[in-house]
Amino acid sequence: MTDIAQPRFQRPLKAPAENLGHVLRLGPERPLILDSGKQLTPFTTAYMTYGTLNAERSNAILVCHALSGDQFVASTHPMTGKPGWWDLYVGPGKPIDTDRFFVICPNVVGGCMGTTGPAEIDPATGEPYGLGFPLVTIRDMVRAQAMLLDSLGIDQLLCALGGSMGGMQVLQWAASFPNRVYSAMPIATAARHSAQNIAFHEVGRQAIMADPEWRAGDYALADTKPSKGLAVARMAAHITYLSEAALQRKFGRELHQREALSFGFDADFQIESYLRHQGMTFVDRFDANSYLYITRAMDYFDLAADYGGVLAEAFRGAKTRFCLVSFTSDWLFPTSENKRIAHALNAAGGNVSFVEIESDRGHDAFLLEEPELFDTIRGFLNAAALGKGVTRP
Amino acid sequence: MTDIAQPRFQRPLKAPAENLGHVLRLGPERPLILDSGKQLTPFTTAYMTYGTLNAERSNAILVCHALSGDQFVASTHPMTGKPGWWDLYVGPGKPIDTDRFFVICPNVVGGCMGTTGPAEIDPATGEPYGLGFPLVTIRDMVRAQAMLLDSLGIDQLLCALGGSMGGMQVLQWAASFPNRVYSAMPIATAARHSAQNIAFHEVGRQAIMADPEWRAGDYALADTKPSKGLAVARMAAHITYLSEAALQRKFGRELHQREALSFGFDADFQIESYLRHQGMTFVDRFDANSYLYITRAMDYFDLAADYGGVLAEAFRGAKTRFCLVSFTSDWLFPTSENKRIAHALNAAGGNVSFVEIESDRGHDAFLLEEPELFDTIRGFLNAAALGKGVTRP
Repeated sequence: MTDIAQPRFQRPLKAPAENLGHVLRLGPERPLILDSGKQLTPFTTAYMTYGTLNAERSNAILVCHALSGDQFVASTHPMTGKPGWWDLYVGPGKPIDTDRFFVICPNVVGGCMGTTGPAEIDPATGEPYGLGFPLVTIRDMVRAQAMLLDSLGIDQLLCALGGSMGGMQVLQWAASFPNRVYSAMPIATAARHSAQNIAFHEVGRQAIMADPEWRAGDYALADTKPSKGLAVARMAAHITYLSEAALQRKFGRELHQREALSFGFDADFQIESYLRHQGMTFVDRFDANSYLYITRAMDYFDLAADYGGVLAEAFRGAKTRFCLVSFTSDWLFPTSENKRIAHALNAAGGNVSFVEIESDRGHDAFLLEEPELFDTIRGFLNAAALGKGVTRP
Repeated sequence: MTDIAQPRFQRPLKAPAENLGHVLRLGPERPLILDSGKQLTPFTTAYMTYGTLNAERSNAILVCHALSGDQFVASTHPMTGKPGWWDLYVGPGKPIDTDRFFVICPNVVGGCMGTTGPAEIDPATGEPYGLGFPLVTIRDMVRAQAMLLDSLGIDQLLCALGGSMGGMQVLQWAASFPNRVYSAMPIATAARHSAQNIAFHEVGRQAIMADPEWRAGDYALADTKPSKGLAVARMAAHITYLSEAALQRKFGRELHQREALSFGFDADFQIESYLRHQGMTFVDRFDANSYLYITRAMDYFDLAADYGGVLAEAFRGAKTRFCLVSFTSDWLFPTSENKRIAHALNAAGGNVSFVEIESDRGHDAFLLEEPELFDTIRGFLNAAALGKGVTRP
């Protein structure tokens, strides 16, 4: 029987510190104050930048990453050696053009690539936080990013953009700091996490917590990790990132490296082999406790709830230009959720355009080569740069 | 932290033999010959019957159960104390009217309610089969049911009907034994398992196998069971049985027994509490190895593959009357898969009607009170009884 989560090679989970990109360390005078009422101090943000800030500091673009993303939006991942997760979209001459724009991509609070998260050392105990880490929210992530912009001396972003949980951060940016976001592009996202999405996250969390190697979150102390549980969580989540049609087209009932069914529990079907691979490789690069915390932050996201249940109130009076993008086959963050945001923005008298892109690739379409997404991002950023009078660096 | 799969009370998994209903034991002279080439002998089928067989033996209806179902279609479950899983539909004066019809519901081969399955004793070793149990297919389930009908002296069923995996068995009945099925009603099913459905099953199997208490299938020998893994498997599957709309309507983002978010990993949301309950209660009544075997049987199901890839050939020349039923919000076995069967039956010159029922309750709609399903079953069975000239018992 193939084991889904035996690491193929031993490697410490944490990348060497020198590979994490830039690091902002804020001391006790600048704690990150959380929605839970707790504080994180000292507080560290690991981030990457691309391109050059212009003299007016007006060409900065913030890229917000999704659940399993990180700061390596357009550079080789230090642990996997793979290209950046949005390498297709960010770089010289690409839609998010680093010849013209200064791109900032921070790892979120609660993450596991250098920003303060549950795998980091709790100064109060000298041991990894584990479940002693306070719960964080999407708003906490945005608050941490605002502190990073402060330190970089950037008052207003030309644009904040991101897909999935990245899109949630973009929406929160527009609500929390409307004057700091000239334009915003939330992609394949929602202003609240649905019951079905909470349900899938809960399955993933229970899979992790059911793994005895999780050890109530203290696995680092025992020099182990809940690999099997995290692999199962990733497998379940990965199905939701694709569409039924894409799975049928890509895999159908094709067999994996065999001529006939094995009449056993090996990965007979290509889809099984593919999913097991997704689970295994995720374990090599992601921290299980971070997965718990970040899924919880998404579950808690309900932007309207902070504004008396009226989503339009989150955007009242904002001058931010919005472009919303959804994909026809995305069943995790369907067009209907994106339309809900568009309606709220219209009700608030906002400046909003909305693009639904025809694609059968499901939620993950935003990470893939989608010509209409290329054109939409390029066109929107060009118009924003023109509107804001952005000069070349 | 609430633990999802701590059994709330200790109870042996296996129900007392006297509570399993009728039992057919076939000795070495009548082994069940499997698609894998292996045999099961002795072979036992546990089944329930309702109503009375008429003098002509022409009023028999076979109800085929789904993945987690059993023979207790219309009687109290001996372990949970709950009503039969299709109690709404089967009984005196109900759509499947036991005043008129003789209803047979057997537990499938590979199951865990008395029919030979992985939890039963392997006569070759004197210990539970565990993973030594041979893989079974939907066709094996049907072959076992045909042997039961032989023993009951029933040549032809008035109707074979069932939903989900039950519908797969109904389709296989019509293909394997066309002369023994006067009419057939496959509900919310497909003639092949899709890549997405195989993917969800694989997640469930990996969750079970990742549980150290699974012990490579030999948990019974250690007097334990992989409760946490099986609970996670059930939670993931349960999401697929519902619809996004039903989850939103039923649970939305409502909190569970609290006024505010806990900023922790307790079941803050009602949907979480509901899912955990589904996982926990399933573990009390279902065997983990059976779950592996039965999901595998569904994955392997591809009726056309046995007929040169042409589904119509499976039904060529059959005189069986068909009524296919699907539900609009069923994304596990969507209408498109049911239409594919209807097209094949039309191409084969079959007698087929097709009903798509408007419902937002997802796949599980077939188990619930759906007035249009009541009317459809009642009408179809009445017409079949009239056509076959069935007398009252």
